[in-house]
Amino acid sequence: MLIVMKPQATEEDVKRVCRKIEAMGFRPHPMPGAQRTAVGITGNPGPLEPAEFETLPGVAEAIRVSKPYKLVSREVKNEDSLIRVGGGANVLAFGGKELALIAGPCAVESREQAFAAAERVRKAGARLFRGGAFKPRTSPYSFQGLGEEGLKILAEVRDRFGLLIVTETIDPENCDLVERYADVLQVGARNMQNFSLLKRVGRSKKPVLLKRGLSATLEEFLMAAEYILSEGNYNVILCERGVRTFADHTRNTLDLSVIPAVKRLSHLPIIVDPSHGTGKRDKVIPLARAAIAVGADGLIVEVHPEPDRALSDGFQSLYPEQFEELVEQVGAIARVLDRTLNSAPQANARR
Amino acid sequence: MLIVMKPQATEEDVKRVCRKIEAMGFRPHPMPGAQRTAVGITGNPGPLEPAEFETLPGVAEAIRVSKPYKLVSREVKNEDSLIRVGGGANVLAFGGKELALIAGPCAVESREQAFAAAERVRKAGARLFRGGAFKPRTSPYSFQGLGEEGLKILAEVRDRFGLLIVTETIDPENCDLVERYADVLQVGARNMQNFSLLKRVGRSKKPVLLKRGLSATLEEFLMAAEYILSEGNYNVILCERGVRTFADHTRNTLDLSVIPAVKRLSHLPIIVDPSHGTGKRDKVIPLARAAIAVGADGLIVEVHPEPDRALSDGFQSLYPEQFEELVEQVGAIARVLDRTLNSAPQANARR
Amino acid sequence: MLIVMKPQATEEDVKRVCRKIEAMGFRPHPMPGAQRTAVGITGNPGPLEPAEFETLPGVAEAIRVSKPYKLVSREVKNEDSLIRVGGGANVLAFGGKELALIAGPCAVESREQAFAAAERVRKAGARLFRGGAFKPRTSPYSFQGLGEEGLKILAEVRDRFGLLIVTETIDPENCDLVERYADVLQVGARNMQNFSLLKRVGRSKKPVLLKRGLSATLEEFLMAAEYILSEGNYNVILCERGVRTFADHTRNTLDLSVIPAVKRLSHLPIIVDPSHGTGKRDKVIPLARAAIAVGADGLIVEVHPEPDRALSDGFQSLYPEQFEELVEQVGAIARVLDRTLNSAPQANARR
Amino acid sequence: MLIVMKPQATEEDVKRVCRKIEAMGFRPHPMPGAQRTAVGITGNPGPLEPAEFETLPGVAEAIRVSKPYKLVSREVKNEDSLIRVGGGANVLAFGGKELALIAGPCAVESREQAFAAAERVRKAGARLFRGGAFKPRTSPYSFQGLGEEGLKILAEVRDRFGLLIVTETIDPENCDLVERYADVLQVGARNMQNFSLLKRVGRSKKPVLLKRGLSATLEEFLMAAEYILSEGNYNVILCERGVRTFADHTRNTLDLSVIPAVKRLSHLPIIVDPSHGTGKRDKVIPLARAAIAVGADGLIVEVHPEPDRALSDGFQSLYPEQFEELVEQVGAIARVLDRTLNSAPQANARR
Repeated sequence: MLIVMKPQATEEDVKRVCRKIEAMGFRPHPMPGAQRTAVGITGNPGPLEPAEFETLPGVAEAIRVSKPYKLVSREVKNEDSLIRVGGGANVLAFGGKELALIAGPCAVESREQAFAAAERVRKAGARLFRGGAFKPRTSPYSFQGLGEEGLKILAEVRDRFGLLIVTETIDPENCDLVERYADVLQVGARNMQNFSLLKRVGRSKKPVLLKRGLSATLEEFLMAAEYILSEGNYNVILCERGVRTFADHTRNTLDLSVIPAVKRLSHLPIIVDPSHGTGKRDKVIPLARAAIAVGADGLIVEVHPEPDRALSDGFQSLYPEQFEELVEQVGAIARVLDRTLNSAPQANARR
Repeated sequence: MLIVMKPQATEEDVKRVCRKIEAMGFRPHPMPGAQRTAVGITGNPGPLEPAEFETLPGVAEAIRVSKPYKLVSREVKNEDSLIRVGGGANVLAFGGKELALIAGPCAVESREQAFAAAERVRKAGARLFRGGAFKPRTSPYSFQGLGEEGLKILAEVRDRFGLLIVTETIDPENCDLVERYADVLQVGARNMQNFSLLKRVGRSKKPVLLKRGLSATLEEFLMAAEYILSEGNYNVILCERGVRTFADHTRNTLDLSVIPAVKRLSHLPIIVDPSHGTGKRDKVIPLARAAIAVGADGLIVEVHPEPDRALSDGFQSLYPEQFEELVEQVGAIARVLDRTLNSAPQANARR
Repeated sequence: MLIVMKPQATEEDVKRVCRKIEAMGFRPHPMPGAQRTAVGITGNPGPLEPAEFETLPGVAEAIRVSKPYKLVSREVKNEDSLIRVGGGANVLAFGGKELALIAGPCAVESREQAFAAAERVRKAGARLFRGGAFKPRTSPYSFQGLGEEGLKILAEVRDRFGLLIVTETIDPENCDLVERYADVLQVGARNMQNFSLLKRVGRSKKPVLLKRGLSATLEEFLMAAEYILSEGNYNVILCERGVRTFADHTRNTLDLSVIPAVKRLSHLPIIVDPSHGTGKRDKVIPLARAAIAVGADGLIVEVHPEPDRALSDGFQSLYPEQFEELVEQVGAIARVLDRTLNSAPQANARR
Repeated sequence: MLIVMKPQATEEDVKRVCRKIEAMGFRPHPMPGAQRTAVGITGNPGPLEPAEFETLPGVAEAIRVSKPYKLVSREVKNEDSLIRVGGGANVLAFGGKELALIAGPCAVESREQAFAAAERVRKAGARLFRGGAFKPRTSPYSFQGLGEEGLKILAEVRDRFGLLIVTETIDPENCDLVERYADVLQVGARNMQNFSLLKRVGRSKKPVLLKRGLSATLEEFLMAAEYILSEGNYNVILCERGVRTFADHTRNTLDLSVIPAVKRLSHLPIIVDPSHGTGKRDKVIPLARAAIAVGADGLIVEVHPEPDRALSDGFQSLYPEQFEELVEQVGAIARVLDRTLNSAPQANARR
């Protein structure tokens, strides 16, 4: 159920609706829009009676939501969501005309490696830095990340280079630690249906980057996001990173058609990871161009100062000079679509 | 690296090898076999020098393990593992000649429902009871299980009906609670690569039922088990429950060829879940027969006293009388393969 | 539209219905059943008026068919079809209580090889011999079969060993040749939607073995069979041979759940090919057992007198002694299901 | 084996090499390049001795080809192939800087419909017209195309609108007919491994558009093309049209990563079909942009004057005004990559 307020409804009208929902034992989700506010309801076991709400002051109408996901749906909020990341002067947004570039190594391996990567990607135009401190690895015997030490290095990267930090959190307890350092909490593909973790990041104040699972349908992907929103955190950025198919020329099959499909159903921004999506360095730039051309709101790319020495994912990490090339090429594609890269800090100050 | 002891090696010889491994900063995994003990080594960043060990008393040879998984591998332990479940008089084993039947509802919904299900499946011959208290659901708005209340009902089921309890744990913290009640900790398909959870159940004293992920390759499946063994819990039962493909006549595609494939590479037992594997009630019995025929060590089946009223998975749950039919049919197939159902408690008393 | 005749309807009543259908410009498909005859109609662009037929003598009712496939459907013919193969004294049936075993090499390589294989599989109990004379190969540079020379060798095998011949036809023109030699025309997986070939075998007098395509849904599989029946050849045997998925431990993923799914929707028999279905010799026997346990009507298995010298598919071909083992094991499973192998010629003389 | 000639080798030198290959019982495939000619050899059962050729006049070296495909490989021909289509003044090329746009309805339904479509797509900038006269349909009861009547209409379209004709051929016999009318012979996805048809179009003088099969790996796709080249027809244009996966938000999953993968291994041009690749009208334009951005050499798009009345594929056909929009958008993307649309006839007169 969605309660759509009249354009002239007052803040008190909205609060009255919320109080009524709470009094019924359910949870209200006020979602302010440019024209008017809507209030989503979750927690109700079945359909509610519209008349219960339509008689309240300021209510335009009460409508039933036809999809299994509600808060992520365009039925509930038609305008694109702008997800703001960072704070103070260093803030930017996912989901608007400006495209976001997240770049950096698969894992933080050392202060030197992270700084070398950060310097290069910053110079090339990235505004966000990726790097894992806690790495979910297929093998228990593989490098699992530097842990909190890695997080501290990431915090230094932010201070030194003005890059916002995107890093992965791997379980609810670990999230307590990661959210102290990160600007964006990443939930990895293998955890897309780790519902305990989804609920935990749903209670965080930090925006969440949610990667699509290896065999997730569109509906499951949106439902995973719904878990996060239903806990109160509306700042979710989706990420397509390839799905698992029979095809063996790439590590995963990048499903770019999911971008317009998400855009049609949801107001959330979605970016693309061409590094995991292909698993091969020489495919990253072409697929990055395609991702922007299809309408993605940004990219997350693995860049390593010395890919051949990387402790993980070296074969899919770009050399820094390749990343510069990528930025140039996707920037040109972006302009065709009347979008720009949010690479220049001053350009974002306007927001 | 695997240190194979001579048949006549003493316990002290084994301990000496373990101490040496620890002194090198790695972790020893002594694995006693019928003929002789082997000691696996994990934690070493690269290959070790065999001569370091072959000169120690009681050591037959030090061999390199060629697979990425070690402890789960037949290279390290050639004989089938017998995983003992339960305690006291109520104990049975997975992986021997006797096949294990786990049956019960998708979720514990109430004391009445659980008792009704338990009575019927016990009478039909099941020795283990399944039922979720914490349910990972695709939608945040679906029934998520009764929580600890559900676990208490399961404990009552054990006391009343002599059934051993298999129930799911969904995150590391939750595991503290679940292991107090369960005889077998289930890790669900969506959590197969939730490595924090795998490590946690790897530190439990309770056996673990590990379900194959929806898009897990055989190697990833065995690596997930390796996570558990590498933490010291060698009591892992694998479970095939269908994978995700293009085929749409069943909810998942049950991949029965993985049973002989696992048997070839690993000493761990593997069972089959024909309920999730097909998602359709009328397919459960035929696929259960096929699972036993292909060589599985048991079955886990959803049975509900009133499937049409089930809060989850009703369409794939058997009616109790269908479960009786299943037991009869798979029992007959088992006899052809010179195996029996471990349905009669006295039959297991021998172990 | 399906015209169901009354039990006491005369042959003339049936003919009258057929003439009326023809007069309307459509095609009648009379399908005699144990109780009564039904007449399917194809070629009609949209639904017909039941009253047009229900007023004719001998007609019980005219019912609309709800599936896109008609003639293969249980809506049109509820009883299992018995597909008779061979002629004279050497005849057997697919789809009854007796299970059919088809065995032989991937390709006919020489008279000696074919005879050696035939002798062994005949002795082990097979009644049908497989062997390709025209091989559809992924590479243009691979052995493509002996052509008509291979067909002549197959005819000799029939004469000498009393085995019925199953061999592949690869295009409409080629079918003219193959049907002169074969007892059963095989349409391979890669040709499952080669509609020109389907129409051509649909005009043949010989039964057709139709293999499921590598990525065919159940509906597409049944529609491919419908093509054959719609041309007038109702003698179609379906065959599951594995589908293409991400799983890499077998060459294909054998989808045994399709057997009960076909049985539910169609009256046609279905057999299983565990050789292509797994692509690995050591998986063939376990999956053959599972195929019979799940309810398949028979098996088609690759057996080569010297697999290590085979010109194609050697790694998945059984040694003759393994085939004997397979026959013994699946025979025991069959008895549990109250079925028998149609291996003894005299046993089939009754039909 | 590949015989690389010296840059200064004479025509007679090349002929001498070919004669020698023929004398050995194999088939020579001379492939002239900008710098020098190479001669591929097919038909040899195993590796040949390089010295046999390296001693002949004009031969630079004889090298072994490491891939299972040879003639399609960059090992054999490193420069991109330019596939010329059409004749006389109306000629254009696939694989160069200019991108090719093929547009038109799924099937030719009538002269009026074909002319209406042709007029619109011609005006929007397409130079090639698609339209099926023989339609491979999943159901035998669906519209199967107008047959030769449809081909005649296509020939009229060429005469009237100056559009080159791309149309499907469905079996070897049918190819005799289709090649009399078509400028490009299309082999559909379901026939990608119909080897009889591949061999037949391999003996045609007309270029071939080969669509990737629904579950074809990259290697199988290139091997299918190899069939055509090995018969002597080197004019093959590849086409990605989506593969079959678990994902259900589009009819197929468009695998754009195959474009750079093909470019790396093969000299053949490859285009993209975003209509079948998505199966949904609103996804066609975004994926068309992505296809050009990733590096495809052109597009084949379904456009219907009245999609809602189409006899097939109406839901994925663009309205004519949407096609105009598509041309504009992909043209802008093309310019970023320093390519142009070959939409203006005069621009192509240069070739």
